[in-house]
Amino acid sequence: MNRNLDRIQRNGKIMMLAYDQGLEHGPEDFDSKNYHPEYICDIASQGKYTCLAMQYANARKFWLPKYAHVPMIVKLNGKTKLGPEALSVTNASVDEAIGIGASGVGFTIYLGSDHEAEMIREFSEIRRQAHRYGLVVIAWMYPFITKPSSNDDELEADIVAYAARAGAELGADVVKIKYPRQPEKLPWIIKNAVGTKAILSGGDKTSDEDFVLKVKQFMNAGGAGVAVGRNAWQHPQPLFITEKTRKVIWPE
Amino acid sequence: MNRNLDRIQRNGKIMMLAYDQGLEHGPEDFDSKNYHPEYICDIASQGKYTCLAMQYANARKFWLPKYAHVPMIVKLNGKTKLGPEALSVTNASVDEAIGIGASGVGFTIYLGSDHEAEMIREFSEIRRQAHRYGLVVIAWMYPFITKPSSNDDELEADIVAYAARAGAELGADVVKIKYPRQPEKLPWIIKNAVGTKAILSGGDKTSDEDFVLKVKQFMNAGGAGVAVGRNAWQHPQPLFITEKTRKVIWPE
Amino acid sequence: MNRNLDRIQRNGKIMMLAYDQGLEHGPEDFDSKNYHPEYICDIASQGKYTCLAMQYANARKFWLPKYAHVPMIVKLNGKTKLGPEALSVTNASVDEAIGIGASGVGFTIYLGSDHEAEMIREFSEIRRQAHRYGLVVIAWMYPFITKPSSNDDELEADIVAYAARAGAELGADVVKIKYPRQPEKLPWIIKNAVGTKAILSGGDKTSDEDFVLKVKQFMNAGGAGVAVGRNAWQHPQPLFITEKTRKVIWPE
Amino acid sequence: MNRNLDRIQRNGKIMMLAYDQGLEHGPEDFDSKNYHPEYICDIASQGKYTCLAMQYANARKFWLPKYAHVPMIVKLNGKTKLGPEALSVTNASVDEAIGIGASGVGFTIYLGSDHEAEMIREFSEIRRQAHRYGLVVIAWMYPFITKPSSNDDELEADIVAYAARAGAELGADVVKIKYPRQPEKLPWIIKNAVGTKAILSGGDKTSDEDFVLKVKQFMNAGGAGVAVGRNAWQHPQPLFITEKTRKVIWPE
Amino acid sequence: MNRNLDRIQRNGKIMMLAYDQGLEHGPEDFDSKNYHPEYICDIASQGKYTCLAMQYANARKFWLPKYAHVPMIVKLNGKTKLGPEALSVTNASVDEAIGIGASGVGFTIYLGSDHEAEMIREFSEIRRQAHRYGLVVIAWMYPFITKPSSNDDELEADIVAYAARAGAELGADVVKIKYPRQPEKLPWIIKNAVGTKAILSGGDKTSDEDFVLKVKQFMNAGGAGVAVGRNAWQHPQPLFITEKTRKVIWPE
Repeated sequence: MNRNLDRIQRNGKIMMLAYDQGLEHGPEDFDSKNYHPEYICDIASQGKYTCLAMQYANARKFWLPKYAHVPMIVKLNGKTKLGPEALSVTNASVDEAIGIGASGVGFTIYLGSDHEAEMIREFSEIRRQAHRYGLVVIAWMYPFITKPSSNDDELEADIVAYAARAGAELGADVVKIKYPRQPEKLPWIIKNAVGTKAILSGGDKTSDEDFVLKVKQFMNAGGAGVAVGRNAWQHPQPLFITEKTRKVIWPE
Repeated sequence: MNRNLDRIQRNGKIMMLAYDQGLEHGPEDFDSKNYHPEYICDIASQGKYTCLAMQYANARKFWLPKYAHVPMIVKLNGKTKLGPEALSVTNASVDEAIGIGASGVGFTIYLGSDHEAEMIREFSEIRRQAHRYGLVVIAWMYPFITKPSSNDDELEADIVAYAARAGAELGADVVKIKYPRQPEKLPWIIKNAVGTKAILSGGDKTSDEDFVLKVKQFMNAGGAGVAVGRNAWQHPQPLFITEKTRKVIWPE
Repeated sequence: MNRNLDRIQRNGKIMMLAYDQGLEHGPEDFDSKNYHPEYICDIASQGKYTCLAMQYANARKFWLPKYAHVPMIVKLNGKTKLGPEALSVTNASVDEAIGIGASGVGFTIYLGSDHEAEMIREFSEIRRQAHRYGLVVIAWMYPFITKPSSNDDELEADIVAYAARAGAELGADVVKIKYPRQPEKLPWIIKNAVGTKAILSGGDKTSDEDFVLKVKQFMNAGGAGVAVGRNAWQHPQPLFITEKTRKVIWPE
Repeated sequence: MNRNLDRIQRNGKIMMLAYDQGLEHGPEDFDSKNYHPEYICDIASQGKYTCLAMQYANARKFWLPKYAHVPMIVKLNGKTKLGPEALSVTNASVDEAIGIGASGVGFTIYLGSDHEAEMIREFSEIRRQAHRYGLVVIAWMYPFITKPSSNDDELEADIVAYAARAGAELGADVVKIKYPRQPEKLPWIIKNAVGTKAILSGGDKTSDEDFVLKVKQFMNAGGAGVAVGRNAWQHPQPLFITEKTRKVIWPE
Repeated sequence: MNRNLDRIQRNGKIMMLAYDQGLEHGPEDFDSKNYHPEYICDIASQGKYTCLAMQYANARKFWLPKYAHVPMIVKLNGKTKLGPEALSVTNASVDEAIGIGASGVGFTIYLGSDHEAEMIREFSEIRRQAHRYGLVVIAWMYPFITKPSSNDDELEADIVAYAARAGAELGADVVKIKYPRQPEKLPWIIKNAVGTKAILSGGDKTSDEDFVLKVKQFMNAGGAGVAVGRNAWQHPQPLFITEKTRKVIWPE
């Protein structure tokens, strides 16, 4: 459907290095090395990630010519975690992403939020523009259920499956989804992203074993890859865990 | 009024296969066969449905050339059931529907919702564009009453009649309406969709007898057809129930 | 000010047949004859009404060439009574009204509603477009006071006078206003629609005597006419009450 | 800054006749003479007011060629007092004001209202357009404090000074401000409208002595004039109080 | 990245004179000298500030040709402190800033406010336009936490660091941030504004010693300068404190 998809995958699989936490979570995720986008670009380059995702301003400033071989996904929308609203709006345009040579764009939709409709509307316009120019569209499909037990619920397999499906029906080329509380349902979840590639959202830093196990489960269930973030750049040896992840995605 | 109406009807009657549940309800409606849009396209094709309704992304990807003889209605708006707001916004445009060769567009209006006005405004713009290019406009006229006893009320015959009428007055070519609690009022309900065709929304999966009976009542009351969804593609033998339905709509 | 005003009046007086209840109230206002817009067009034609008001879709479908001698006012906005919001938005455009040959447009403003500002803004744009093309602009000036005793208050003479005045200051050519609780204040009310014609909103079906008395009072107070709706088309003999009304408006 | 300012002042001073109460307050401010805009135009003309302010529709209909020597300020926004929201939106455009030959435009900003931001945004666009075509921009700077003691507070000198300052910083050529509870602070208030002319909002009808005293205090404090409304046209002898006011503004 | 940055810095350091308090706080910040923008322009000129920030209307009127050597930053958005909403909207455009010869634009974002998304959206459009024409973009990054202890929290070092980071990720060339409660964390805070210059928001008037100490801490931590406001123009000898500040920023 989208020929540019080939630019961000290897043998049909995706290993994305994700770095949109600066806006989403603030510096609390960072240390004296990984606060700097060039450190991230180095990991992406040396770790042979198939793509790298950043907010536009970081991509514009730090995705230097020497990193041009790492395809860029510009994360177009975002919000801080300081406010009460689950509304993520664009802070850069598809044109700007094209202007710096990006291969695709990323966009978060908080399904179930009071503002779901507004994000669907904006996503659809972004999707239309991006596809017109041959860019890959990756949807961060994050449920945001507004009842008290929200944090728990959002990882229920049924909700993750719904998120995957919704991303597919909204026209994303790739959906980035959360790890479900019931991993045995992963095949069903991924199957529902019918016609769309599903990649695992790496989530919080965990142990190497735990992380690699999750990636394995996801790939075995039919997943197309993983978006590694804190598990790589918060790791004391990013290339070590990257190597382990890579071997899961592209086993010999 | 709209010559394209002929493309989605046979002898003035409509049998639509509806498949917008992936976004509206999530995968909980699906099993290992019907999660896939091609399975649906196959049913539509073999079952001789007069049209098929899907979200844009599914239509774009799975309404393959081999299904081109089944006219497509692109459902332009949608929402998940995860959030609190009864607001359905477009996730694709009339231009995009035209771009893939659709015969018409579908749009849900939640009458009585806090956001009724916003959906009427968006629907009206869609209607204008669609009619300019000769596309059929089908309105999913769904009351969404915000009082406690909501779920019950929405099937009251008076409310269904109101929905049918509102769809007609807003310029839909076809209104898709719910089965009323008082089926004896169906003639009055359908009459009120004056100048507009009324089709029955199939609703949840029920027994074959019950479903066929409802379709009979609806057709006898002057209805123009039915939108079959879960009653066909959740059926172990979709073509069996399709055949039965078809015979009700076009009796020999 | 607006030469088209002549097309909807006779000797400076207006007798409008109003039929926007299908969207506003639903079929509960209808019976087996008056649910059909052609029945209304027949009354308008035979009853020598100076104009007829309908939603766009009804006008487009049922205001057939044989009724072309009855000038059409396309009611551009509307809402159902099912929801909580007093917000009426356009479901058709001035261009569409022009496209079917209308003489004017109608628009409801719920003064005092939470959404007053939004309707004033939209009305003003409609007024501008309509006047640019020589269409008459008729404002349904309906107070919608959001305090508990709302239904009573909205007929207080002071509120009706305010509504008339506001319509005039907002640039309507004609204001359609409610019958006040204190009819002795009608001259003051009508005077305040300075430079703008005031017509009486017929309201619910009442007895012939009562209705004719109200019209008399209104005309004697300086009114420019009446918008008859349910009092005509819910009447067993619409032409009988029409005749009586006509004689009040244009006495010999 | 704005050469058109000369058209609405005499020796740098402004005496405006303000008549936007029909929309803002309704007919309760009127009697059998002053309900009519021509009566107001007559006062403005005979009383040698330096300008006259009205809603667009009144100006369009009643500011006849014989009054062309009285410069017109079209009040572009407004609201009724019937609703809960302190939001005043435009009901006419700068282009329309230009189209009837106005010298300037007026716009109300309710500072401190929930909708302050919306009015600042709309005002700024109006200011931009008006200045592009050489029209004077007059801001009705009215605090609308949403705490219980609102009505009292809004006349506190500090609040009036803030209103004057805000109008100046937002780019108004003239700010129309309320009389403060602490008139001894008028020099400070007016000084803060730096680079912008401050005129007194006449307010409710009061005694001749009281009104003239307030105007005197305002002019002595450095004010540029006054906007007289009800104190003139509710006066049994409008030209009498006008004459007295004029002598204060332009003493021999 | 932005060559215009050179116009507002000296040896890579910025000393801005900030004067947007008239709209933000009202005249309560002013006395009989500093209420006047020319007084501010004089301080900026004589004190050798590297730039001056004002609302558009003040800049347009008082940034006279004789002050042209002081680069102007037009503060494009603002709000009063009278209302409940933490929403700051533009009252002038990038085009207007360019029209008077400004070197850059300023924009406040209240992170964590209910309206964060709206300000991010508007800021992003401003950033795009400003960069297209080579103007510097300075973001006033102010957290506005909506919990009871709001005023305290907003100075927590973690929140200030988040603000700095968010400004950088949103594409500002310079972020203006608050002094943190834990000054020992300033190096970390400033480091997180990666690729973007951080300047200290001077805040309320304090003692000379205190102010100079804060500036020293900020510069030692890697800061790019300071935005002095009330500490300069509320000072009895503005050039005295300016001189002291300047020596901290550009030590010999």
